[in-house]
Amino acid sequence: MKIVVYGLGIIGASFAAALKRAGHTVYGKNRSERPVKLALQRGMIDAKAESYEGAEVVILAIPPVAAMRELEEGAFPGGCIVADICGVKECIERVVCSASRIYRYVGTHPMAGKETSGIESADDRLFEGKNFIVTECAATDPEAVEIVCSLAKDVGFSRIVRCSAREHDRKIALTSQLAHIVSNAYGKSSLADSVSGFTGGSFQDMTRVGGVDEALWTELYLLNSEALLDETQALIHRLEAYCTALRAKDGERLRALLLEGRLAHERCFSEK
Amino acid sequence: MKIVVYGLGIIGASFAAALKRAGHTVYGKNRSERPVKLALQRGMIDAKAESYEGAEVVILAIPPVAAMRELEEGAFPGGCIVADICGVKECIERVVCSASRIYRYVGTHPMAGKETSGIESADDRLFEGKNFIVTECAATDPEAVEIVCSLAKDVGFSRIVRCSAREHDRKIALTSQLAHIVSNAYGKSSLADSVSGFTGGSFQDMTRVGGVDEALWTELYLLNSEALLDETQALIHRLEAYCTALRAKDGERLRALLLEGRLAHERCFSEK
Repeated sequence: MKIVVYGLGIIGASFAAALKRAGHTVYGKNRSERPVKLALQRGMIDAKAESYEGAEVVILAIPPVAAMRELEEGAFPGGCIVADICGVKECIERVVCSASRIYRYVGTHPMAGKETSGIESADDRLFEGKNFIVTECAATDPEAVEIVCSLAKDVGFSRIVRCSAREHDRKIALTSQLAHIVSNAYGKSSLADSVSGFTGGSFQDMTRVGGVDEALWTELYLLNSEALLDETQALIHRLEAYCTALRAKDGERLRALLLEGRLAHERCFSEK
Repeated sequence: MKIVVYGLGIIGASFAAALKRAGHTVYGKNRSERPVKLALQRGMIDAKAESYEGAEVVILAIPPVAAMRELEEGAFPGGCIVADICGVKECIERVVCSASRIYRYVGTHPMAGKETSGIESADDRLFEGKNFIVTECAATDPEAVEIVCSLAKDVGFSRIVRCSAREHDRKIALTSQLAHIVSNAYGKSSLADSVSGFTGGSFQDMTRVGGVDEALWTELYLLNSEALLDETQALIHRLEAYCTALRAKDGERLRALLLEGRLAHERCFSEK
């Protein structure tokens, strides 16, 4: 199966390398030349892709606005499976479903990453044990989904969930987008510069993903602003309840708030 | 050196076991019997402490309100070093400094823990690579501090910082207390029950410590409510800026906010 990966950043290059390790023939494509050369040198791809000609599967591992453009303008062969890996799905589905396409689109979101980006951070084991989300609509080709899911298993994902783009976008607003906002905001405390030696695991966790690529995340946030705004406002509202209890030095209320959070935490994790 | 550890929860039992492994003779004391028996069975202590008689060092690994009572009422031998491990320090220092004491008090805060508690979670390697904070005031005995720091090194702490109780409490409000509030509040989203399969590392990080022991943390929060309230309100204020930008779909503003957070993140971590 000829697979082309377009976009050799951390996700695309990790996909390419993991697919190649699993025995697939992988062609790499990138806007700039350097990542292609690096991917070749490091054996992450078999060859440079000059075009999509002959491709059975194309993985678009580029930011959402660029992915939408490519889905409109790319010269994909008829019947070719095209899967994007963007962190927002409804806006992309809208582009793909707005006209009849000769390719078969499958929306995906690999729930893996690092606090660093670029091909230098790529790793053919990045997806091991991670979640892989596939989004489907009425127009989705079931065979294309099966093939994409089988590739996801090949690269190491341990769990695959299938849902609508809408469900994806609502849930990801909480599990990923808001987490990155909180982390980004957390480290802006006026004290954050002087806490060296005063930190434990909870501070590391809270700030780990705070160094976001602002161009990429601005795109992601604007393309899912409604759901993200809902979740952010709801979190602010919940945090205000602790402030009210602290201000009143109301131990009973504080204890009730913490208990509520512990029970929510247990429900959330017992389900996993 | 005869060391008594009072309170065989995760921190106390880990201290006892790590001190014993380092060659010290360790006596264990606990309000209830079961942890003492377990600690003996597992070789975490040499013997049960029937009293503080003959103790050169006592480690009080009990919650703050109980620690303050013990510092008032405990029958410590003259000259004995008594170190508490509570996550708040100013309120405890006030108790100790309010009367002349025959023991030598040293405030400490081991920046280590797990999302679980109790002796079952104890681990003689818990402190390896972690930060240890020592708080000092005008009445602090320098020799007592040296001995406590040398025990901290024996159990594996990689870095020891010394500061005033006030500085500790301000910084810990950000690095630990607020992190636990955010984590506790995060999982209360109405969606949190249904995100299984939709999570990556950022959600795990954000929620890891959310299942707090509400009795202990209510104590800690009320004893440092002013600093914690400041930090919580400041975080809410920062989060509101992202909401304003999202509501206006203002990409330029959002990008500026994320960039500000990334730069803060880089400053914070370049210093570590």
